[in-house]
Amino acid sequence: MKNKEQIFKIRHSLAHILAIAVLDKYPDTKITIGPVIENGFYYDIDFGENKIAENDLKDFQKKMKKIISQKLDFDKVEISKEEALEKFKNNEYKTELINEIADNGEAIMLYKTGQIFEDLCEGPHIENTSEIPTDAFKLTKVAGAYWRGDEKNKMLTRIYGVAFETSEELKEYEEKIREAEKRDHRKLGKELDLFTFSNLVGAGLPMFTPKGTKIREAVTDKIWKLQSALGWERVVSPHITKKELYETSGHWAKFSDELFKVSGKSDTRFVMKPMNCPHHTQIFASSPKTYKDLPIRYAENGVVYRDEQAGELAGLTRVRSITQDDGHAFVTPEQVEQEIKNIVSIIKDFYTKLGMLEDGNYWVSLSLHNPEEPEKYLINEDGLFLEAERILEKIAQDENLPYKKMEGEAAFYGPKLDFQFKDALGREWQLGTVQLDFNMPKRFGLEYVDKDGEKKTPIMIHRAIAGSLERFMAVMIEHTAGNFPFWLSPVQAKIIPVGDFANEYSENIFKKLKEAGFRVEFDDSNDGFGKKVRKAKKEKLPYFIVIGEKDIESEKLTLESRDEENSEQIAFEELLEKFKKENE
Amino acid sequence: MKNKEQIFKIRHSLAHILAIAVLDKYPDTKITIGPVIENGFYYDIDFGENKIAENDLKDFQKKMKKIISQKLDFDKVEISKEEALEKFKNNEYKTELINEIADNGEAIMLYKTGQIFEDLCEGPHIENTSEIPTDAFKLTKVAGAYWRGDEKNKMLTRIYGVAFETSEELKEYEEKIREAEKRDHRKLGKELDLFTFSNLVGAGLPMFTPKGTKIREAVTDKIWKLQSALGWERVVSPHITKKELYETSGHWAKFSDELFKVSGKSDTRFVMKPMNCPHHTQIFASSPKTYKDLPIRYAENGVVYRDEQAGELAGLTRVRSITQDDGHAFVTPEQVEQEIKNIVSIIKDFYTKLGMLEDGNYWVSLSLHNPEEPEKYLINEDGLFLEAERILEKIAQDENLPYKKMEGEAAFYGPKLDFQFKDALGREWQLGTVQLDFNMPKRFGLEYVDKDGEKKTPIMIHRAIAGSLERFMAVMIEHTAGNFPFWLSPVQAKIIPVGDFANEYSENIFKKLKEAGFRVEFDDSNDGFGKKVRKAKKEKLPYFIVIGEKDIESEKLTLESRDEENSEQIAFEELLEKFKKENE
Repeated sequence: MKNKEQIFKIRHSLAHILAIAVLDKYPDTKITIGPVIENGFYYDIDFGENKIAENDLKDFQKKMKKIISQKLDFDKVEISKEEALEKFKNNEYKTELINEIADNGEAIMLYKTGQIFEDLCEGPHIENTSEIPTDAFKLTKVAGAYWRGDEKNKMLTRIYGVAFETSEELKEYEEKIREAEKRDHRKLGKELDLFTFSNLVGAGLPMFTPKGTKIREAVTDKIWKLQSALGWERVVSPHITKKELYETSGHWAKFSDELFKVSGKSDTRFVMKPMNCPHHTQIFASSPKTYKDLPIRYAENGVVYRDEQAGELAGLTRVRSITQDDGHAFVTPEQVEQEIKNIVSIIKDFYTKLGMLEDGNYWVSLSLHNPEEPEKYLINEDGLFLEAERILEKIAQDENLPYKKMEGEAAFYGPKLDFQFKDALGREWQLGTVQLDFNMPKRFGLEYVDKDGEKKTPIMIHRAIAGSLERFMAVMIEHTAGNFPFWLSPVQAKIIPVGDFANEYSENIFKKLKEAGFRVEFDDSNDGFGKKVRKAKKEKLPYFIVIGEKDIESEKLTLESRDEENSEQIAFEELLEKFKKENE
Repeated sequence: MKNKEQIFKIRHSLAHILAIAVLDKYPDTKITIGPVIENGFYYDIDFGENKIAENDLKDFQKKMKKIISQKLDFDKVEISKEEALEKFKNNEYKTELINEIADNGEAIMLYKTGQIFEDLCEGPHIENTSEIPTDAFKLTKVAGAYWRGDEKNKMLTRIYGVAFETSEELKEYEEKIREAEKRDHRKLGKELDLFTFSNLVGAGLPMFTPKGTKIREAVTDKIWKLQSALGWERVVSPHITKKELYETSGHWAKFSDELFKVSGKSDTRFVMKPMNCPHHTQIFASSPKTYKDLPIRYAENGVVYRDEQAGELAGLTRVRSITQDDGHAFVTPEQVEQEIKNIVSIIKDFYTKLGMLEDGNYWVSLSLHNPEEPEKYLINEDGLFLEAERILEKIAQDENLPYKKMEGEAAFYGPKLDFQFKDALGREWQLGTVQLDFNMPKRFGLEYVDKDGEKKTPIMIHRAIAGSLERFMAVMIEHTAGNFPFWLSPVQAKIIPVGDFANEYSENIFKKLKEAGFRVEFDDSNDGFGKKVRKAKKEKLPYFIVIGEKDIESEKLTLESRDEENSEQIAFEELLEKFKKENE
């Protein structure tokens, strides 16, 4: 985008022009607000009894082009509260906004479009509709949206549009959307039978089928190998917990609204755990520790629960039950730096294996507190929060991480290094994270006996490698378009006999691969050979192994690859070696 | 016990004699009920302001012996409601009981002990206190207990006693109790650092340390190997769920009182899952199935939550968060028998490995519905519940299981085969289970397309191998007194160098064992050799490996076993073979 300001104005002006087109066809509708968003704009409208269909969008778009061709001016005017209330007296939404603006002591601004339309608006806008290219915008969809995002309010109709400076950009964007739709993890998740939702279980609460579970386990096994080599050990903690735990940790004061509350026969007030860290402090505290015991490193694939709004839930990227590949190290001050470097090395190793740690395809957010909102953080007078920020920046420098300082992105208990990765469509995802925390150990009164015999407070390091397993799976599905790499595939290869005569030989290969620990299937169904191959291809399996007469004669097998053109005839031992290598 | 009836009478009579002794010392107390229990009796008493101490028990016991020596008669008398109410007018507990008995249209019976005591009682009792041996009973402890077990009622004082027919039996019993106390999993769990509870997290919600987690994983890995060979696959489901799921399954109607309720910002009413079966039906239902897909077998170490009364919680044997090694197979009618036999073989294999499947040390409860309370079961008119009972009995016979029919022990959805094992102290535990269910698949409308193209309802088989992982761990700790077999030990061996000179050689062995997947530790602390050995013994490790000068010279190592007297000097390769074998 050459000119950020200009495209913003164009999108904003298109929202107004959309309103004109809508009011032209449905004069009795009430328009509410129409902001600019990424790639375009929307307008929320109360259509009363009218239902808006695809056809309407076409009409609106046609009308918008006509309006643009009229070369209308946009003019800004300040008016009094009374004038404004009079102008919009039949629109309770605008009335609400006007009163709010006035209550805030702000001026009430109006934007006129030619002589045909005026809207309550701060701007900025273009000067004349001739600045808008008519072949670079499009109305895309209609959705429901509560007035001001509040479920208690009336449901309005939101009309979305996209707009760019050139038609090429619009085409490029549409191509990307089509590609994203093909790769949509909700669609592929169903096609590849990886996970499911049920109305009886509830929104945002995914269940994983055997295949989806195999992907989760492939991910956690891979991470487990990397982290167990560096001294991490697994622990287990429950999903409900007394409210007092989070009062002590500080989560209750900051996030009580996002916690699910649990009640039973007794008076004890429980909540669903929103994080695993407080539990890990309690495991640490369960027996006395000395400096010789540190670092202590607890890892847990803990399922945490957060009360997200139903409207915000989306496939696996935004869920209510989140499996974190969570971990907490308790260290002495001397150990902080090395421990964090070790964690960074786990993250780097893991994403290198995934081919996602390429220059320009990832960056690291050095997430700091927001100096303008210190009350959002546990910033003690002792300056430890700021010290933690300095330590993380030093490590980012030492490790040559491509980092940017991001104020306001810290956790409430401390600063973070958040790893941001670009997927195949160029979208960014925050996955791995390392967080330095001088606060929580103090709040829980954790201690260890140091060399000098004194009791000291350990420092806590929070970390996740894949982050949420649900979101990670969504990203991997969309990043690979379901063409998972061999090590991640729920089914790594399928053995397909050319005919019944090859069944015994095929089954033998199937069994040997299974015993060797590979995830393989054997298609001994009554389907014809062609149908079996088509089915295997649809399942996006990395390999299928065809057994024909020649294979049996030469005691070999024919390996067909998803990603390579040519098939190859190889011996079983060669196949085993190849598969072992690819699993690494 | 030679004479069950006589010892029952003795215990029951001792409860009355305890009441006499109590009223002698504290005349203003109100006695409530005093039943016979396993090995003895108790009496619940309202002591008003008085607190009862150890010393009181001694006094009561002394007094009881005196009363017994007076050779008092027990006499049964029927009295009218009015007489009874008059006699116990100062005792609101007895008054409540009298009214209830009368309301039920039953006769009100009184038992007199000599001329000194009378109590509301159905009997039976001994005829004269001379029948009671004075050296074969003992008051054992004092505890709090709510009147009629209801938390809303007043907390009473419960005095426990044990009683036998001979002093030898009492001694034997006391010896067993001492042994049980030594083996108490709560005590050993702390000493061996396996699990912990926290006041901030809540009662009945255990957390597992790295060592405890290793035990859980050793158990589930062992079971996983057995079951994956028979076609089981893992799935994942969430811990909270809409109430509607359990309304459909029938759990809500039968158990809503035991479910934790979960609430959030929305109106949706969630509950903590008390079982995994309904979720697995939803995974089954997520894609169309044909007869070719069956059997489908979903396994999940699902953590379920049940709202147990705080007073009933006990270590790991009774918890609120229960990890079930749960599994559900969906089968056609023709597959039922073979599938259940396969599950029985998994259970038999697993407990054979544990040395618990010995004749006389286990039996199987064929758990049937109670014909007198049909309303407690989903017994449809189609007779499928009874058919399921017949199938399970046939399998029990075919498999030569030592089974007993137990009416009233079925699940509400179907009958079961419950495997009962005796531990080293002769106590029985229900661990593995197989359950046959024609109901739930119907309630959830599950279906598959059969060979004939017709849609049919699959049959569901519920099963668990270890049952609750928490209870299983408790049983294994107490059964082995913490001397876990090699494959189950959180630390399988510790390498101890005799002096610093042996550190490098020792560390090399440690690393090689670790790489081979064994759970080993290397004690390179500054402690002296003797202290290191004592520490390893206290930790009950199956092996420790000592490295001295001679070992290094001969390129061997010295293996010391927990369970055998003699140590042996062997080569590393021999050790590896030995360890691999023991892991099986």
